[in-house]
Amino acid sequence: MKRILLKVAYDGTNYAGWQVQKNANTVAGEINKILSELLREEISVLGASRTDSGVHSMGNVAIFDTESSVDGDKFAYILNSQLPEDIRVLESKEVVESFHPHKCKSTKTYRYTIDNGPILLPTKRLYSSPVKQRLDVDAMKEAAKFLIGEHDFKSFCSINTTARTTIRRVIDIDVDRNEDTVTIDVMGEGFLYNMVRIIAGTLVEVGLRRRTIASVGDTLKAVDREEAGKTMPARGLCLMKIEY
Amino acid sequence: MKRILLKVAYDGTNYAGWQVQKNANTVAGEINKILSELLREEISVLGASRTDSGVHSMGNVAIFDTESSVDGDKFAYILNSQLPEDIRVLESKEVVESFHPHKCKSTKTYRYTIDNGPILLPTKRLYSSPVKQRLDVDAMKEAAKFLIGEHDFKSFCSINTTARTTIRRVIDIDVDRNEDTVTIDVMGEGFLYNMVRIIAGTLVEVGLRRRTIASVGDTLKAVDREEAGKTMPARGLCLMKIEY
Repeated sequence: MKRILLKVAYDGTNYAGWQVQKNANTVAGEINKILSELLREEISVLGASRTDSGVHSMGNVAIFDTESSVDGDKFAYILNSQLPEDIRVLESKEVVESFHPHKCKSTKTYRYTIDNGPILLPTKRLYSSPVKQRLDVDAMKEAAKFLIGEHDFKSFCSINTTARTTIRRVIDIDVDRNEDTVTIDVMGEGFLYNMVRIIAGTLVEVGLRRRTIASVGDTLKAVDREEAGKTMPARGLCLMKIEY
Repeated sequence: MKRILLKVAYDGTNYAGWQVQKNANTVAGEINKILSELLREEISVLGASRTDSGVHSMGNVAIFDTESSVDGDKFAYILNSQLPEDIRVLESKEVVESFHPHKCKSTKTYRYTIDNGPILLPTKRLYSSPVKQRLDVDAMKEAAKFLIGEHDFKSFCSINTTARTTIRRVIDIDVDRNEDTVTIDVMGEGFLYNMVRIIAGTLVEVGLRRRTIASVGDTLKAVDREEAGKTMPARGLCLMKIEY
């Protein structure tokens, strides 16, 4: 038996997220189907991040165990020859059997992309969420500082969470503008359900001056989902990388 | 009666091209449907460029005539509120009735985008065509020089053309690399059927060293489609702009 690690990029538009579901196309489902047929074993990949329906990835990490003699680095090539083009395995390799994506400490970077132009261009529509009114990126940057560090992020977590604790550590948040594109990069050791999309929604309200910079600190202290901004749409969110 | 000009951007992935067809979704068809319902007139837009199935645009130009009293610049807003997100009207305005997109002299710029990386990223798959082997962009640039100017482009035209003459004037061709992305920008006063995609296919063969730089001059002189490279896929092609 050996354990294989996959680094997986995908366009989440046409998938009901990463995690296998009955009667829905999922990224893990596509990978399992191909690997199971190929290896004639029942393969079930375990993903580091269960990205939601419509969320994209530039490098989710997944593992699976196999009895196969195929070299670890060959799986990327084999999978890409059979996967649909909206899923690509960027890398595959054998890892030690003790490696587990949920149990090993990691840093995840998510990017939320906002199109801040007057008209959302067709070629950008799948990978950004539109906000027409000009965003004050400096104010967003300043407000984001309240969220850096270890905090109880209950205000920034969907009420549908099943997490035992809502305490998480955000390592950094960077807000940037490149012409009409505003990006919010959030780096952390772990995230709650919808956390990045709620952080983005709250910072957007700051950028629109519907909420003060200081209010973001109060929102955090309130530990109440009602105090934060709305959950931004899935299409603007991309899991950029996971580092172990 | 007044004449309205539209500047239209679209993701061509889900359309059978610009031109109205029976039993197929087309960009012009979508616009006609909305304008006809809105204005209660039979509206039929005339496009400057009949882009093919799967080809994208950042600024095709179209005109239509209407008896409506709506201000010319309002049509962009009205259309965008009803069009699918993969079609956007970037601008609308009233023009003189003598303006005709086929009869007025114009310069069109097309861009052909090649993904020259080892793995085509999911987020790039709809807007570029993959060539895995490293392209020699300098050789492509050099070869492109043979095509600049007024020539008989019969070698670079689909045999299915209905054009009366295959003489066209190419103003400039620029080949560039930005990391793994290679772009071929072709600017001209008019193009033949599949001309940019055949130019791209021929330059790719030069870039792969399957064809010499000098051979491109010979191909042009041969006035024979068989002598040129293959027609590159539609998804890499985008009509960037049309200037009158």
